[in-house]
Amino acid sequence: MEFSANQIAQVVSGIVVGDENVTVSTFAKIEEGKLGALSFLGNPKYAHYIYDTQSSIILVNKDFEPEHAVKATLIKVDNAYESLAKLMQMVEQMKPKKKGIHSTAVIDESATVGEDVYIGPYAVIGANTTIGNETIINAHVTVGDRVKVGSNCIFFPHVTIYDDCQLGNEVVLHAGTVIGSDGFGFAPNESGYDKIPQIGTVIIEDKVEIGANTCIDRSTMGATLIKKGVKLDNLVQVAHNVEIGENTVMSAQVGIAGSTKIGDWCMVGGQTGFAGHSTIGNKTYIGAQSGIPGNLKGNQQVIGTPAMDPKIYFRSWGVFKTLPDMRRDLIKLRKDVDTMKNK
Amino acid sequence: MEFSANQIAQVVSGIVVGDENVTVSTFAKIEEGKLGALSFLGNPKYAHYIYDTQSSIILVNKDFEPEHAVKATLIKVDNAYESLAKLMQMVEQMKPKKKGIHSTAVIDESATVGEDVYIGPYAVIGANTTIGNETIINAHVTVGDRVKVGSNCIFFPHVTIYDDCQLGNEVVLHAGTVIGSDGFGFAPNESGYDKIPQIGTVIIEDKVEIGANTCIDRSTMGATLIKKGVKLDNLVQVAHNVEIGENTVMSAQVGIAGSTKIGDWCMVGGQTGFAGHSTIGNKTYIGAQSGIPGNLKGNQQVIGTPAMDPKIYFRSWGVFKTLPDMRRDLIKLRKDVDTMKNK
Amino acid sequence: MEFSANQIAQVVSGIVVGDENVTVSTFAKIEEGKLGALSFLGNPKYAHYIYDTQSSIILVNKDFEPEHAVKATLIKVDNAYESLAKLMQMVEQMKPKKKGIHSTAVIDESATVGEDVYIGPYAVIGANTTIGNETIINAHVTVGDRVKVGSNCIFFPHVTIYDDCQLGNEVVLHAGTVIGSDGFGFAPNESGYDKIPQIGTVIIEDKVEIGANTCIDRSTMGATLIKKGVKLDNLVQVAHNVEIGENTVMSAQVGIAGSTKIGDWCMVGGQTGFAGHSTIGNKTYIGAQSGIPGNLKGNQQVIGTPAMDPKIYFRSWGVFKTLPDMRRDLIKLRKDVDTMKNK
Repeated sequence: MEFSANQIAQVVSGIVVGDENVTVSTFAKIEEGKLGALSFLGNPKYAHYIYDTQSSIILVNKDFEPEHAVKATLIKVDNAYESLAKLMQMVEQMKPKKKGIHSTAVIDESATVGEDVYIGPYAVIGANTTIGNETIINAHVTVGDRVKVGSNCIFFPHVTIYDDCQLGNEVVLHAGTVIGSDGFGFAPNESGYDKIPQIGTVIIEDKVEIGANTCIDRSTMGATLIKKGVKLDNLVQVAHNVEIGENTVMSAQVGIAGSTKIGDWCMVGGQTGFAGHSTIGNKTYIGAQSGIPGNLKGNQQVIGTPAMDPKIYFRSWGVFKTLPDMRRDLIKLRKDVDTMKNK
Repeated sequence: MEFSANQIAQVVSGIVVGDENVTVSTFAKIEEGKLGALSFLGNPKYAHYIYDTQSSIILVNKDFEPEHAVKATLIKVDNAYESLAKLMQMVEQMKPKKKGIHSTAVIDESATVGEDVYIGPYAVIGANTTIGNETIINAHVTVGDRVKVGSNCIFFPHVTIYDDCQLGNEVVLHAGTVIGSDGFGFAPNESGYDKIPQIGTVIIEDKVEIGANTCIDRSTMGATLIKKGVKLDNLVQVAHNVEIGENTVMSAQVGIAGSTKIGDWCMVGGQTGFAGHSTIGNKTYIGAQSGIPGNLKGNQQVIGTPAMDPKIYFRSWGVFKTLPDMRRDLIKLRKDVDTMKNK
Repeated sequence: MEFSANQIAQVVSGIVVGDENVTVSTFAKIEEGKLGALSFLGNPKYAHYIYDTQSSIILVNKDFEPEHAVKATLIKVDNAYESLAKLMQMVEQMKPKKKGIHSTAVIDESATVGEDVYIGPYAVIGANTTIGNETIINAHVTVGDRVKVGSNCIFFPHVTIYDDCQLGNEVVLHAGTVIGSDGFGFAPNESGYDKIPQIGTVIIEDKVEIGANTCIDRSTMGATLIKKGVKLDNLVQVAHNVEIGENTVMSAQVGIAGSTKIGDWCMVGGQTGFAGHSTIGNKTYIGAQSGIPGNLKGNQQVIGTPAMDPKIYFRSWGVFKTLPDMRRDLIKLRKDVDTMKNK
């Protein structure tokens, strides 16, 4: 599909500077521009690329004024990055959606499959499971028994959903992600450990997106709960009985121990770990690689292990490197003072 | 299935307080109680729920005395949590076990499959592989060639077992776990790296349970060894030539570098990392997010990176936050002393 | 296959000490030696095993002189470990390669498959995808649409390659690894987050090996780039728009945030995390569990969070444990000085 500068400007409420009839059919980074591509300039530090790029159209912020001639057509908008995102989303939605059920999919006869669903090669759908309308289940996905899946979900290959889990609408699960594996519960006896059966489940609400090879364990009783709009990156670990509040976002390799409850609209940096049985307030912003040993009030930033105020963290780490000097100075002072005392 | 308070009391050696004929058919958390459910009260801080819960029967510790009237029937036991676990295990074992081989499973004709085995859709079993009695191999599991699998194992979907690995009895592997991938061994040459072939294998002994998306690499020679009763959580990394001793338990996202040997009955907190070629004694308890740079004697607790005595760790971190103040005080002291000296 | 000491000595340019006609047919660790096996002695601290081992042939460094009688035949070489690696590689290459396409593989009719390819049970190959000669695609691998795969690659079970990715020659992907999942890009709105479509791809160059359950996200635009000869261990996270330079090696559980560019010939210890939008120079050596908050010049070693010179790191950690003592000493000094001032 081709779009003219004029058409695009209408979609993003922008002003065309240059040839309004030039057309594009793809996107490109400004530094990798090519004829027929649309690029964007957000960060002013990349402005120098705009004079050489081969791209045909560039989205720029409305306050951008070129210092030299620009070959490309500019479209001036309130926020170049947001306008780009909007255009990309539009193009994404125009792509034809996969439909139909592959002949090799194994769907239990007691399962209920909605309209306009895609089920790919070798997918397995268990007994008494329900799949909502227009959901896309790619190759090799396995969905257990008595699972409820909403509409307009997308599951990428090799996703596993254990028995009895419940997923809302517009849930995206990337490849290899596991929903509903047993929580890690064992009770010691004299010769080893007894397994505590994990008879709970996992509930994932609407508009949740989960990255690749992430694991969400089922609860001992009740449900591990991932609320509406949560976004989890790849290789995240969510233990049994955890709750993650609405629109909370977590980067890759975060780990959350059992029964911890995290509030709404939090942001968590990669490789952070949460101790179990903690409560984290809404709008808590946690730096990467932090260790959260217990409860945190919301509306604050923390970083470090154990997590602390970022100002204290960075100032203290600055001093940390001078510790050997400080100790040496301290010993010398002691000597000086002792000498003076003795006089 | 329904059980009366009387029947349950007999199983857990408890004393009924209230209607001994009331029946339950499921479990529920005390705060999510419902008619016909059994709940338990372990931690006294949740005691207030007992007066309002809808659950029909509550397991309580024998020293629990209600302060107000309780609608539910109580069963007093030595340890409410252990009694709950026992009941859950009983119910779990009463569930019918899956049996039979799905028509789409690809089983090499040279493989030996025991009695009462379940092999699910699209499972693949390699040449000269042996599967013990009553083992459950769910959909999409792939077992390589010359693998030995014991009896009463459960493998969840998308498990991969590479060629030549050996697994004992009652081994549980959760979805996406990989057993026997190549150890990470490369030798530099002028233009890049030569791969060191990893011709060893993995041995997993009886009653081991391994979480989802965990990786256990095969050894260079000999075997990576996971001993009897070990429990590993999700997303754990076990490198080549590692040994993990009996009944050692590790939380999620732990990483163990090559050739490290860990003793029996250790407990390792999440996201901990072990350097290679280390030896860790029996009954070592390691806090979450620790870094273990070398050998550790057993029968101790450590935490931190590098790992240290927890008392020192927590006290030193307490002081860490005051480092900028300490440095300022030290500089001021120096000045004061110098002034005094000059007088 | 059997090889004599004489034959082996010729391959590794070694000198036979002992019976040159003795034969071996396998490898064994020196401490687990057995008749008919070849072992090696690299590290002198294991030299005591050589007098008791049952192995028939031992590779030793040429400066090794036994202190007692040795039953095994010795082959003296420049570097025993390198010679071992060479022999293992030879044996590995003599193994017959898998060939042929399993009847259950689903290969889109528009896909192009090279010569002498192996495609295992239930593998799925998408539309307009190209597979090079002699590539081995094991059971349950799913390759998307428009993917380019070079020759002599090996993909282990349950690998997922998303649409449009490009892989060079001799690329090895271990089980469960995901190539091309969506980068983690969301823009906040009033009620939650809008997804930024990730329309870029992943390019993996020749001779790259990637461990099990590792994730490499596709870029927002352009390509996430893994250059020639890179080796990544298990459970590594590579975010969108990242570039990893030639022959860089990363241990397990490393995480790299978006748009970071890492140089050539770097070595990165396990569980290290990189902040986004950083540039790391060539030949940077990073200790395990480090946190890299921004740019690093090449040709240096760093360790810690935030990463620093290893000398400073280890010296400062040594002092860290004495912080409570230092604070107490400092307070006492203050008192002493104040007392003296008042006099």
